[in-house]
Amino acid sequence: MQQAFVLSSRITAFSSPQSSVNRSFPSHTPTRLYQEGGGGRVSASVQDKKVLEKTNTSNKNGKAQQEPPEKLDTNPPKGTRDFYPEDMRLRTWLFDQWREVAKTYGFSEYDAPVLESESLYTRKAGEEVTQQLYNFVDKGDRAVALRPEMTPSLARMVMAKKGGLNLPLKWFSIPQCWRYERMTRGRRREHFQWNMDIWGVSGEEADAELLSAMVTFFRNVGLTSDDVGIKINSRLVIGEVLTELGIPPEKFAATCVLVDKLEKVPLDAIQGDLEELGLDRSVVEKLTQVLTVKSVDGIKEVLGEESQAVKQIKKLLHLCQAYGIDDWIIFDASVVRGLAYYTGVVFEAFDRKGVLRAIAGGGRYDKLLETFGGDPTPAAGFGFGDAVIVELLKDRELLPSFESTGIDTVVFAMGEGTHPAAINVAKCLREAGQSVDLVLENKKAKWAFKHADRLGAKFCAIIGSEEYANNEVAIKNLHLGEQTTVPIGNLSTWARESKLGEEC
Amino acid sequence: MQQAFVLSSRITAFSSPQSSVNRSFPSHTPTRLYQEGGGGRVSASVQDKKVLEKTNTSNKNGKAQQEPPEKLDTNPPKGTRDFYPEDMRLRTWLFDQWREVAKTYGFSEYDAPVLESESLYTRKAGEEVTQQLYNFVDKGDRAVALRPEMTPSLARMVMAKKGGLNLPLKWFSIPQCWRYERMTRGRRREHFQWNMDIWGVSGEEADAELLSAMVTFFRNVGLTSDDVGIKINSRLVIGEVLTELGIPPEKFAATCVLVDKLEKVPLDAIQGDLEELGLDRSVVEKLTQVLTVKSVDGIKEVLGEESQAVKQIKKLLHLCQAYGIDDWIIFDASVVRGLAYYTGVVFEAFDRKGVLRAIAGGGRYDKLLETFGGDPTPAAGFGFGDAVIVELLKDRELLPSFESTGIDTVVFAMGEGTHPAAINVAKCLREAGQSVDLVLENKKAKWAFKHADRLGAKFCAIIGSEEYANNEVAIKNLHLGEQTTVPIGNLSTWARESKLGEEC
Repeated sequence: MQQAFVLSSRITAFSSPQSSVNRSFPSHTPTRLYQEGGGGRVSASVQDKKVLEKTNTSNKNGKAQQEPPEKLDTNPPKGTRDFYPEDMRLRTWLFDQWREVAKTYGFSEYDAPVLESESLYTRKAGEEVTQQLYNFVDKGDRAVALRPEMTPSLARMVMAKKGGLNLPLKWFSIPQCWRYERMTRGRRREHFQWNMDIWGVSGEEADAELLSAMVTFFRNVGLTSDDVGIKINSRLVIGEVLTELGIPPEKFAATCVLVDKLEKVPLDAIQGDLEELGLDRSVVEKLTQVLTVKSVDGIKEVLGEESQAVKQIKKLLHLCQAYGIDDWIIFDASVVRGLAYYTGVVFEAFDRKGVLRAIAGGGRYDKLLETFGGDPTPAAGFGFGDAVIVELLKDRELLPSFESTGIDTVVFAMGEGTHPAAINVAKCLREAGQSVDLVLENKKAKWAFKHADRLGAKFCAIIGSEEYANNEVAIKNLHLGEQTTVPIGNLSTWARESKLGEEC
Repeated sequence: MQQAFVLSSRITAFSSPQSSVNRSFPSHTPTRLYQEGGGGRVSASVQDKKVLEKTNTSNKNGKAQQEPPEKLDTNPPKGTRDFYPEDMRLRTWLFDQWREVAKTYGFSEYDAPVLESESLYTRKAGEEVTQQLYNFVDKGDRAVALRPEMTPSLARMVMAKKGGLNLPLKWFSIPQCWRYERMTRGRRREHFQWNMDIWGVSGEEADAELLSAMVTFFRNVGLTSDDVGIKINSRLVIGEVLTELGIPPEKFAATCVLVDKLEKVPLDAIQGDLEELGLDRSVVEKLTQVLTVKSVDGIKEVLGEESQAVKQIKKLLHLCQAYGIDDWIIFDASVVRGLAYYTGVVFEAFDRKGVLRAIAGGGRYDKLLETFGGDPTPAAGFGFGDAVIVELLKDRELLPSFESTGIDTVVFAMGEGTHPAAINVAKCLREAGQSVDLVLENKKAKWAFKHADRLGAKFCAIIGSEEYANNEVAIKNLHLGEQTTVPIGNLSTWARESKLGEEC
């Protein structure tokens, strides 16, 4: 089985261990996973055109040119993944864990199209998420994009209801998100991302509730605060520094995006961005200086007793204590996140070993709806990708095994003419709640047992014509190696008891 | 709440009640659902460019032009759907039903990227599915497409493993599939489709197993063989007629696609296709004549005693009897399905009232892998869309209600300073397995009860400072209207008992 998630990420160029990432895509860190399906393979579109031309010709002439076609490139498109059953079981397990936490916190699931209008994402703050948009013009001349993140779709959906939704709302989703970037090879272009959002609550109570949900997930999958920490900060810190320096408010978003980049690249490397933004180098230096402060008291010293930023952070920390999650939380003024729309509290979950990219991130985005022309509506949320968490869980050996298919019984007709009887047995076991694989071919018993073993089945029911004439079925317990005979009339009871036995 | 699925389909132009559809998309029948998000709205890409230019200018000049932005078009892209929580609960319910049947039959879930190489779909048989491809050229000059159907991706995945997969395999998936068609306005461009496939079994045992799985789904959701029938046929019928008429085998696929169209449009309307295919009008007339035969004996009269087609159909009918699903099955030689790759048995589930489009369809496609340059591998499967089945279930009043959020308890802090206590209560109830909505704002009790009612919650826990000082919480049963007081220490027990009471 191909593994969808491969543990091999190490931080490379342009990416510090504390690297900040967008709410959408993790940045700048190729993993082996990201390289699968990329690299040196021949472009599918080029290779396959030949195949098509041939097929084409053959069809048009109406001649039976029996020349075998050239082989299809069997890789999924560059940067994307196939999910074979074992990979899919891992994905389903992870999604179930996410859904379980969302349910515990009373969040409702929603979804939106993977394809959206490009305009939903066109922000001019220089974010990676918009620079790497997987956009194109469709046949109807519409500028569209495969969504790079879910929040703009959520904002669109909220706005579409024009006050018809009762606030506050607590919604979650697990969208597949896409990106396209030309420069670097071998990075993945899609991931799944758990999104949890609260709309209509302006207080830090919402941010704390989100942080608590995130911690509940970590705890449920067996991680502790020794494995994972969550850095918190508020963009009000940057806001207050900028105000003090006389920088106009409309430069706030772009400055935050720039500051986020400073985490990963040297100041010189983004000199151009700096100039375009019209920010003095001294302003940036002042900002970086403030953001290296690692304590709330330290920030208070810079921003003063009456600082809203300080009050906000203190309140959030206080709430985290009430939730009993304070051992997971660390104040870190350098965390600003790379998305333009955050306005207040921002946070980022990280691997305490400092090896992996950020695990999840989010924050408050009270002004997003206004930028779309909607009414001011407070909102906060987080995005939590499927890649880094699986790397972490593998590293900590916390992933269950996904080898077994979960099939209870393989039903196998031995000899000619017994298939209808096997159908009947399979039907009976299925109606009793079992997961049954019915062998659909004439096979030897040896094959059937090997097949059942491969599937990880618990039982093999063998339908022999003699036994069946006696209204009996031989059942082998594959875990214990024991074989018993069950009367057809008792099959249903046997099946139910075998399921119960498993639950107890 | 917006409804994602709307019951309103009536057959219109170009679509007979027995209209055949592709395994991918239902054809030619606009429903109200399909019109949502389409029709007369201004193109999002055009409208929003104005917004962007403005924002742009304001950013570049660095001036605070406080002019409010023009409103975003809040519709999802043309032909796509948003899933608000209530719609999503319906979708989740449907997917769970599908997954449950797949599990019962021992099928394993898989997935592939929604974006594939265009070449995966470029077949020249004139199918609607390839004519309406949602394809585009990406920034890397690759010809790609949003998948119109899942089978080619499955074939690619099987081929990629080069015999590394143990056959037979029984896999299922629930992909979102896309189409793009320029001509008709107001049709939906995406749907979700349950796919069940068996690879490696050449006998009709596989086809019968698939039909049985489909019937199990219908039964599980409360439909009977009075509501739904499944027409079965074999493409060997057409094959044998063509051979007899001396038509070369490479015209088989395109002829089948053409015959499928004949179900929906008059012969004259596809005169061009006919000529391009080089088929005599008399051949088509002979075919149509054979295909109007509605009994196996009738077909036997035409094709003779030794016909493989007749043997195949008889065997399939015999197996359906063994499964006990024969009351659902009807032989109908006119069913050929619109996909080029089918080679043998084909089938199509339909509404007995004859009002709706086809509910599901599938068949055998033993040569698909060869057309990709792979080894010959027998395969069969079906596709089952999410639109028509929901229309049918609504019409038969078989859909459960999706109004309630499933939340157990709303936890509400009454008065100043009690929020930390409310956090504690919520935490306790959540740990005991409840789904809890914690009120995150200062609100009046009246609001909290109304809020709990809107969510369809069962209980409201009210944290008053006095009661909490006495280590007690007031809990109102919103269904019964009764209020009790529970000691904090007993909350966990109360929560578990309230969940148990519900299950009994």
